[in-house]
Amino acid sequence: MGPLSAVLARLPVVLMYVVRNQTASMRDEGMTGETIGDYLIRRLHEEDVGHVFGVPGDFVLGLFKKLEDSPLKIINTCDEQGAGFAADAYARLRGLGVVCITYAVGGLKVVNAVAQAFAEWSPVVVVSGAPGIGERVHGSMIHHTVRDFDSQRKVFSELTVATVVLDNPATAASEIDRALKLARRHSRPVYIELPRDMVSVELLPGREYVLPAETSDAEVLRFAIAEAVEKIGSAKRPVILAGLEIHRFGLQHALAKFAHATGIPVAATLGGKSVFAESDLLYLGLYEGAMGSDAVRDYVEQSDCVILLGAMLTDINLGIYTAHIDRSSSIYAGKDRVSVGFRSYDGVLMEDFMQALSEHSWTIRRPADFEHLKHPGPFAAGERPMTVAALFHQINAFLREDMVVIADPGDALFGAGDLYIHDGTHFLAPAYYCSLGFAIPAAIGMAAAAPNLRPLVLVGDGAFQMTGMELSTIARYGMNPIVIVLDNDGYGTERPMLDGAFNDVHRWNFAEIPLVLGAGLGIKVGTETEMAAALERAGTNLQSYTLIQVMLERNDHSPALSRLAARLGERVAKRS
Amino acid sequence: MGPLSAVLARLPVVLMYVVRNQTASMRDEGMTGETIGDYLIRRLHEEDVGHVFGVPGDFVLGLFKKLEDSPLKIINTCDEQGAGFAADAYARLRGLGVVCITYAVGGLKVVNAVAQAFAEWSPVVVVSGAPGIGERVHGSMIHHTVRDFDSQRKVFSELTVATVVLDNPATAASEIDRALKLARRHSRPVYIELPRDMVSVELLPGREYVLPAETSDAEVLRFAIAEAVEKIGSAKRPVILAGLEIHRFGLQHALAKFAHATGIPVAATLGGKSVFAESDLLYLGLYEGAMGSDAVRDYVEQSDCVILLGAMLTDINLGIYTAHIDRSSSIYAGKDRVSVGFRSYDGVLMEDFMQALSEHSWTIRRPADFEHLKHPGPFAAGERPMTVAALFHQINAFLREDMVVIADPGDALFGAGDLYIHDGTHFLAPAYYCSLGFAIPAAIGMAAAAPNLRPLVLVGDGAFQMTGMELSTIARYGMNPIVIVLDNDGYGTERPMLDGAFNDVHRWNFAEIPLVLGAGLGIKVGTETEMAAALERAGTNLQSYTLIQVMLERNDHSPALSRLAARLGERVAKRS
Repeated sequence: MGPLSAVLARLPVVLMYVVRNQTASMRDEGMTGETIGDYLIRRLHEEDVGHVFGVPGDFVLGLFKKLEDSPLKIINTCDEQGAGFAADAYARLRGLGVVCITYAVGGLKVVNAVAQAFAEWSPVVVVSGAPGIGERVHGSMIHHTVRDFDSQRKVFSELTVATVVLDNPATAASEIDRALKLARRHSRPVYIELPRDMVSVELLPGREYVLPAETSDAEVLRFAIAEAVEKIGSAKRPVILAGLEIHRFGLQHALAKFAHATGIPVAATLGGKSVFAESDLLYLGLYEGAMGSDAVRDYVEQSDCVILLGAMLTDINLGIYTAHIDRSSSIYAGKDRVSVGFRSYDGVLMEDFMQALSEHSWTIRRPADFEHLKHPGPFAAGERPMTVAALFHQINAFLREDMVVIADPGDALFGAGDLYIHDGTHFLAPAYYCSLGFAIPAAIGMAAAAPNLRPLVLVGDGAFQMTGMELSTIARYGMNPIVIVLDNDGYGTERPMLDGAFNDVHRWNFAEIPLVLGAGLGIKVGTETEMAAALERAGTNLQSYTLIQVMLERNDHSPALSRLAARLGERVAKRS
Repeated sequence: MGPLSAVLARLPVVLMYVVRNQTASMRDEGMTGETIGDYLIRRLHEEDVGHVFGVPGDFVLGLFKKLEDSPLKIINTCDEQGAGFAADAYARLRGLGVVCITYAVGGLKVVNAVAQAFAEWSPVVVVSGAPGIGERVHGSMIHHTVRDFDSQRKVFSELTVATVVLDNPATAASEIDRALKLARRHSRPVYIELPRDMVSVELLPGREYVLPAETSDAEVLRFAIAEAVEKIGSAKRPVILAGLEIHRFGLQHALAKFAHATGIPVAATLGGKSVFAESDLLYLGLYEGAMGSDAVRDYVEQSDCVILLGAMLTDINLGIYTAHIDRSSSIYAGKDRVSVGFRSYDGVLMEDFMQALSEHSWTIRRPADFEHLKHPGPFAAGERPMTVAALFHQINAFLREDMVVIADPGDALFGAGDLYIHDGTHFLAPAYYCSLGFAIPAAIGMAAAAPNLRPLVLVGDGAFQMTGMELSTIARYGMNPIVIVLDNDGYGTERPMLDGAFNDVHRWNFAEIPLVLGAGLGIKVGTETEMAAALERAGTNLQSYTLIQVMLERNDHSPALSRLAARLGERVAKRS
């Protein structure tokens, strides 16, 4: 550090004078001895956050310095977008994930990732540096500013359940607590803005933030449960359809208890894949309308009581609206609504409803008449060119319990629906918001959150070109995911909708990327036997990432997409 | 197209029925015979837009198909962020630039690029696909949706001067016109949302949108000009400081006319570099406070009348607040304010003020006592390791009139301030908002906007890792920029402020990237003679991009940053 440092840091120092003097005068009222930055870091650590994903910038350098000296580990990504996706993945596993970036040029780069976290109930904490309070004087034009100093906060107010600006040492601790508690309660993102001249300002003592309790109306809850119990009891062939919210609100145990107490089989939505252990004898498989297997579809659609638990009724989960569930005989419990048939119950929380259902004294049903999902078994590789169907079969045969599958949207996701996931929460995908380019940065978050699990990433060539170079971050921190690139020369899922040159991408020699990064193992694969050999090498290469570039025909699709096509082809044929 | 297409496109078709029927009933009121999509494309083409930058996605596929069949050329980037930056660069040169993306997962990825365009007066038109109006029914959960269907528009309302949703065939044409006219008037971004079921809906006849005229108050204008003329006339050594807004509002001609009529020399801000031809005998050089040259600094700071024209007083332009301009004797004309000394004049437009100044009958001054900026001359390369100073000297010697310099923020930008730009507007950099990763995507926009100019890109290693793989797009469309990577092992501009491992980046073998992309020429350079040879090869390689990876010492800085350090070192020494 030379004179240059004195210079560049000069402005905030001068202006901090005002704030310091102000707080100094409050000293006799008693100080906490802890700065705002330190408190934020301590609270995050207490909430089981061990890593922070981000890119430094001048407005957040002070906080990065504090982070470096803290128990939290900084994971620097190449671009802020990568940090946003990594924090999202981390949050899905650990209950909170932090992305820490500079003002505007950093913060506004993670808007899309945070929007995805909001849409899919992932509690991401956005910590953004910002111009100092002392710099925010009339007419000053500080770099990175958009319209005014509040522009970024306003943008995030659309994508979060709380936005707080830590501009007051008397309220900062309480505001941090409020944000973190709301992130946990709603399982959705929050935004914390830390002006650079407040990082080292001491907190004034204040009251702890108490989040008002959120409870069900006991009388309505009893009534709703009685109706549900009656409906379930009188049903001949009830079935549970479980989704994403089960995972986000930690209700896997209640779900399993309810299923085992009643003997009712469980299907999952694509977004909820792996919330119920796929090895459980009560597991049916994925329900995806015409995209899913016939057996599961028939079982769900012929049921006289579908119990939807945390299952968002999105177009993707419903197989692009090919699903047919009789609403009049269904029971629905979600974060937004609890209903039995067409009757909705205000003031009943999903959590309480599910808890009460699981604690009811049920009579267990005799083993239902259905096929438990079975592992597809080994794959006999031949000298045949790779197909999407063979690829997923081979991956199924290769998957082990210590792996977590991360699927990017597109056919990587649709195909992954058929994978057999042994245990709960070992499948990660943005199955509703569907932002391309999620999977590789998500592997960074996952590797940090659960070092005992090896990520197996499925990503298309188009999506890889968005964020795939975050393999650099993976190399930097010595992570070892297996990355499988489905290289079919473009946006394969869009071609059947409407094709044109705009669905092409420039071809990359993905397998050469290790040369650029000076790390990693790259393998290009054209046949089933080459794929089998590549997976074997990936299995033993624990030192670095393995990138397998799988060459596929341009118009080849996953079995799931083909099923959807066949089913709708039938309908079209019937009509004409 | 097989049955799959029928399926996936099914939903919007069914729901469009409502809209179609509604418009059909209006048919007897007369139709225009032109669809909303076609009108949008025609209007953009009339506004001199020849290219559209974007990434397709299902909500915007219909518009992409129409674009493919139109005179506009689609440039597909790897990631939407790249398309946003490319459109920004295109807009800076052509007066409008279009980024066309899908809903949310596309639109929310360009928020940062659009924020930069807003901050730096660049008229970017965001065209976003969206769920169909017919799909936006109560409780429907369509993929890519954040909070509600209006979330994305609300976000963009913070970053644009108009947001329009083309949901009504009776108003769509007028709304498109309003948006485009406002983008031009304010030279700032606008947002146009096109629901997918409205692309092919026919326009109903409507009135043309008339933008209310914006004129100066003639009486106040006369008064202000009289005061300015008096102040300038009585000044002994006036000087013009010209900035960015001159370029954005097309006032280069008025500036040149004013300077030549008065004989007053012109300095430029870093953001306004090249708004005044650097070969003009009245050109002084860049004024950047302590960061700029002593000669220019002394001339400006000792002037008894600084005439600031379109010169935003940002921290970067002011050399991190090391500038000293006597406000009481200055004249200021900007988009937000016109003032003489401390007197501001309401209702006076910058354009009219400058026009009136340039048309006044001045007495020309005798050639002022200053050094006209001279080209630094050839560089004698030796077997010395590369330094930042040598690099910029070598580039100066290499630059030709048919090149345009694009500088990424950081020392690439500070150093580029010393480059000698022959003609106007041949320098492009986000010198206020300073978003890293701008330069390489900007080269795409520039190559499309001005195929006669060859981009010379200056980018740091950290910034390259954010968006540099858009070289893929450059390869795809056969563009041939020269990309110089200042490889100094991390965020070099941040190290002097506050250093830590967070300022490091994973090292890339940038010169190997052509292997991954199957196109381009990559050269790694360690010494001055190697650099000279590399530039020579780049000069003759017109078939593809040339990437020159320049190895620099970790703590080496540009002459501009070193000047700033030295000047402030003096001050610190004086104080202690």
